Amino acid sequence: MNIHTKPSVTTGPLPASTKMFTSPKDAPDIRVAHREVELHPSAMEPPVRIYDTSGPYSDATAEIDLEKGLPRPRTDWVLARGNVEEYDGRDMRPEDNGNVGEKHMARAFPVINRPLRGTGKELLTQIEFARAGIITNEMIYIAERENLGRRQALDNAGHKIAEGESFGADLPEFITPEFVRQQVAEGLAIIPANINHPEVEPMIIGRNFLVKINANIGNSAVSSSVAEEVDKMVWAIRWGADNVMDLSTGRNIHHTREWIIRNSPVPIGTVPIYQALEKVDGIAEDLTWEVFRDTLIEQAEQGVDYFTIHAGVRLAYVPMTAKRVTGIVSRGGAIMAKWCLSHHKESFIYEHFEDICDIMRAYDVSFSLGDGLRPGSIADANDEAQFAELETLGELTKVAWAKGCQVMVEGPGHVPMHKIKVNMDKQLKECGGAPFYTLGPLTTDIAPGYDHITSGIGAAMIGWFGCAMLCYVTPKEHLGLPDRDDVKEGVITYKIAAHAADLAKGHPAAQTRDDALSRARFEFRWEDQFNLALDPERARDFHDQTMPKEAHKVAHFCSMCGPKFCSMKITQEVREYAESGMVEMSDAFNNSGAKLYVDEDEVDELKRSNKALGGV
Amino acid sequence: MNIHTKPSVTTGPLPASTKMFTSPKDAPDIRVAHREVELHPSAMEPPVRIYDTSGPYSDATAEIDLEKGLPRPRTDWVLARGNVEEYDGRDMRPEDNGNVGEKHMARAFPVINRPLRGTGKELLTQIEFARAGIITNEMIYIAERENLGRRQALDNAGHKIAEGESFGADLPEFITPEFVRQQVAEGLAIIPANINHPEVEPMIIGRNFLVKINANIGNSAVSSSVAEEVDKMVWAIRWGADNVMDLSTGRNIHHTREWIIRNSPVPIGTVPIYQALEKVDGIAEDLTWEVFRDTLIEQAEQGVDYFTIHAGVRLAYVPMTAKRVTGIVSRGGAIMAKWCLSHHKESFIYEHFEDICDIMRAYDVSFSLGDGLRPGSIADANDEAQFAELETLGELTKVAWAKGCQVMVEGPGHVPMHKIKVNMDKQLKECGGAPFYTLGPLTTDIAPGYDHITSGIGAAMIGWFGCAMLCYVTPKEHLGLPDRDDVKEGVITYKIAAHAADLAKGHPAAQTRDDALSRARFEFRWEDQFNLALDPERARDFHDQTMPKEAHKVAHFCSMCGPKFCSMKITQEVREYAESGMVEMSDAFNNSGAKLYVDEDEVDELKRSNKALGGV
Repeated sequence: MNIHTKPSVTTGPLPASTKMFTSPKDAPDIRVAHREVELHPSAMEPPVRIYDTSGPYSDATAEIDLEKGLPRPRTDWVLARGNVEEYDGRDMRPEDNGNVGEKHMARAFPVINRPLRGTGKELLTQIEFARAGIITNEMIYIAERENLGRRQALDNAGHKIAEGESFGADLPEFITPEFVRQQVAEGLAIIPANINHPEVEPMIIGRNFLVKINANIGNSAVSSSVAEEVDKMVWAIRWGADNVMDLSTGRNIHHTREWIIRNSPVPIGTVPIYQALEKVDGIAEDLTWEVFRDTLIEQAEQGVDYFTIHAGVRLAYVPMTAKRVTGIVSRGGAIMAKWCLSHHKESFIYEHFEDICDIMRAYDVSFSLGDGLRPGSIADANDEAQFAELETLGELTKVAWAKGCQVMVEGPGHVPMHKIKVNMDKQLKECGGAPFYTLGPLTTDIAPGYDHITSGIGAAMIGWFGCAMLCYVTPKEHLGLPDRDDVKEGVITYKIAAHAADLAKGHPAAQTRDDALSRARFEFRWEDQFNLALDPERARDFHDQTMPKEAHKVAHFCSMCGPKFCSMKITQEVREYAESGMVEMSDAFNNSGAKLYVDEDEVDELKRSNKALGGV
Repeated sequence: MNIHTKPSVTTGPLPASTKMFTSPKDAPDIRVAHREVELHPSAMEPPVRIYDTSGPYSDATAEIDLEKGLPRPRTDWVLARGNVEEYDGRDMRPEDNGNVGEKHMARAFPVINRPLRGTGKELLTQIEFARAGIITNEMIYIAERENLGRRQALDNAGHKIAEGESFGADLPEFITPEFVRQQVAEGLAIIPANINHPEVEPMIIGRNFLVKINANIGNSAVSSSVAEEVDKMVWAIRWGADNVMDLSTGRNIHHTREWIIRNSPVPIGTVPIYQALEKVDGIAEDLTWEVFRDTLIEQAEQGVDYFTIHAGVRLAYVPMTAKRVTGIVSRGGAIMAKWCLSHHKESFIYEHFEDICDIMRAYDVSFSLGDGLRPGSIADANDEAQFAELETLGELTKVAWAKGCQVMVEGPGHVPMHKIKVNMDKQLKECGGAPFYTLGPLTTDIAPGYDHITSGIGAAMIGWFGCAMLCYVTPKEHLGLPDRDDVKEGVITYKIAAHAADLAKGHPAAQTRDDALSRARFEFRWEDQFNLALDPERARDFHDQTMPKEAHKVAHFCSMCGPKFCSMKITQEVREYAESGMVEMSDAFNNSGAKLYVDEDEVDELKRSNKALGGV
């Protein structure tokens, strides 16, 4: 699509789903969005409530106008707390969009908002309010959001706490606003919510909450457009992305980012060094603190919720990578390594870390301390360079906390299974419990084209061990930029990993959805099985490839075994039998098994209709 | 395709690959097949040798004639060992093909071979020879096959043993024929190789060897044909399936199986109860020992290498499943449960277990002791029914060993991550170290359409913990029968899981391929990266979606970052710099960074060519 055309995105609810809102008992003005999946009446079960990241786009009643952006309810909350001022903001400059010429210039977002910033007085960031014992509206929202289904699950189970191995994570029966406050105050969780991103629906990242996932989007010098990136953002959150990072490089990145943020109900992260590098025409050694500082302010004013800051790539660590199989694979890490070596100086990001804290605090931009020296291959996992940087990130976490900033810490990368847990344990120790945010890790290097899977394995495991947010990897990793299909495949894979982790940790309500879906499966409620799936469309499509007719949606058999031969049906009979007593022989049961369901002619007919439709 | 047409399959080598053969030093007549991937001359590396399951189909020099079947070299080995006799074999009966009428009858395999069976004298099965201290040709072949790359890897690494956490697995530097013999003698590994499947290339299943994977194929009453199943078998082994199970039900299953076995270089497994049920018209309670016995002999004569035998579904265990969310989901388990309850009798399979051993020993068919009570949902994992059956399987393992049979044991199913390891540990304990063979396990129930991924996570973990063979799950699981694409997706996912497990266990040579691929990636040898991938075709295709031109295959950049901005390139400069000394400032380095690779016009041109081709 052309860079001048209007973006369009996918809207409307998922099948059988309704957007609904609840309000916390003591805060009737706060409306927390959820998704509810309605089940077939025969289930005799209430709707299943699902944590919803998709914002107004999946609300059948919402009016979407990408040219105006989403509503901005959080502005009132921020203003009411005080200590902020509205100001003119930095003027846009040609280099903000990579000095793009008229011909290639993307259309600017039509609405201009004056930015807010902290006045310098105390209590601006979520961590500062939390430490002061103040529960913010964001914390109240999050408690309601995270509690989703817990009461129902616990009521169903007679308040039996789910089993699980949490490795020390603290998973209370209910999340209270006070629990959220305490977690944020201690730095164990962050609420990424720039005061200039009032469109965001507050969410939390920490190992004592649901495991979250991040989707990366962004154009590069050789591909993609603004409209495609807005579409990918909405598409990613439709399938469950809790956060989105805009990793754009090349031209038009200021405009691209503005369109994304103004239309995003989830936190947006960036890697500011990418844009800073564009401003110096791609020459790493020309980077300066001034250019970097200017970029941080530019992006903070736009409303970016967290910045990846590669402050741990110190001069002394760079030579540790020289003998690696794959050297430095982080873009930010490579840029800073080159800068350090060129100038033979300590990293200006490390040197100016406290200045960076001051800027980020003024907008409550959270740190995502970047792992610029993460391993890019199995051979390089857990090496000296990686762990030296992690120790520095631990040191910087404490500096940022002292400056009133929220912090999470990034992790690898490529790590074989037996080396994953030590990453988690070391991060917790070095970084004082700050949330860990890892890319995968990929558990083998030999499957380009399938790295969502090589990394989904590692992601599930590290999520179980305590990682708070999993950065997705798409099938295109190492090969190309993800398109829409790749974004969906990556998001669904990572929802699987995060959910498998929640189950294994023993999250009190995680199993609710598994159980509801398994009951539907066992009772041949095909529609319910599809609708409860992470991807209802694919589930239905796969079923229809073999059994396309509407009548088959209520068939008490499936294509795997065919009508005469169904283990689930037999089990139902076993159950009836077992319930009627073991000793008493049942003639009725004996007679019921002959010629189940349909006769051979019907099977033939079914096969014919499949062939006609190109089914297997 | 019509059931009367000739099957056709995919042949020829994978890109840059050559089929080559090695012979053990002391056995020049035994030719062991491998695949070698040739690298670009600039790599200055020898070809990478890869374990090859694809048989003659990937040999550019082999003549393939599906109407004749594969060569039968093992017949000489079996005859030379003695204690076998050729005989007429059982007559085929109409019910063997489900009483199919003329109209639907599949064409019989054109060549008829008279079967062999043991004469009853001692030393017929691999375990019997092993216990007698005799090293069979199969053991020699396997040692050579499993050693693949170990010497090279250890030479490269200066004989440093790979790191890893093997959880007690014994992974020697080299596999000797004597090691294979000892493992088989102790029951720790099996060589599934029916004396009537002389086409097989011997392979071994045991936790002290490479982790193996199994692909399920098979038609059902509502879909598929003989030719499709032969094609799927060849397709599955092309991508790395070590074993294939034919799970056909419905009509034509005798003929389908014959076509598959005669053309299969990998062991073929079946679940004989499926065919037995067809013979009694699908009515479980009409099953008898005689019908089952007849089916075992029929299939053993055809050359099936292992039988899933659900001997652990005992009458007393059936009521334990009544309160489950998903009851009994194993087809074989459900059939036997129904039989037991209908007759209120102990399972005839359990009662006749020693008779079954006698039949299977006579052909050296290995046991795969079926887990008929495996959990079908997260809710049912590790419950009383599952573990009661596992204990019985442990008891039966020892009976089968005493009768001279080889045994592996099947496992779940649906298991959340924190409950996986106890499955492995309990199986090892109860079954005396007999190889474990699990289906996944799926780590959550909420992703129908993606169950290759939900289960790939569990498979990688249980493989690491000691599972010897992983039965694949395809994206169609729970929804429909897998087609060709699903088979490939399932096989590649499980190759990832098995390989990740080998890496984590510390298999001495497993990392060779990861390292070779990572070096190729780092050095922008795109073709080598594709060719070393598990799926070279997809890797190339994904790359070409963004960068389609041949020139881009040698580009020192990729579409993710674009030409001006490449972390790998920067790292190479860092390496050069680091090597030239840290103190000395390098003006040359400072100057080299400007305007890397291509100018902006070239970028524009690249974008245009992408758009024209529909790239992102």
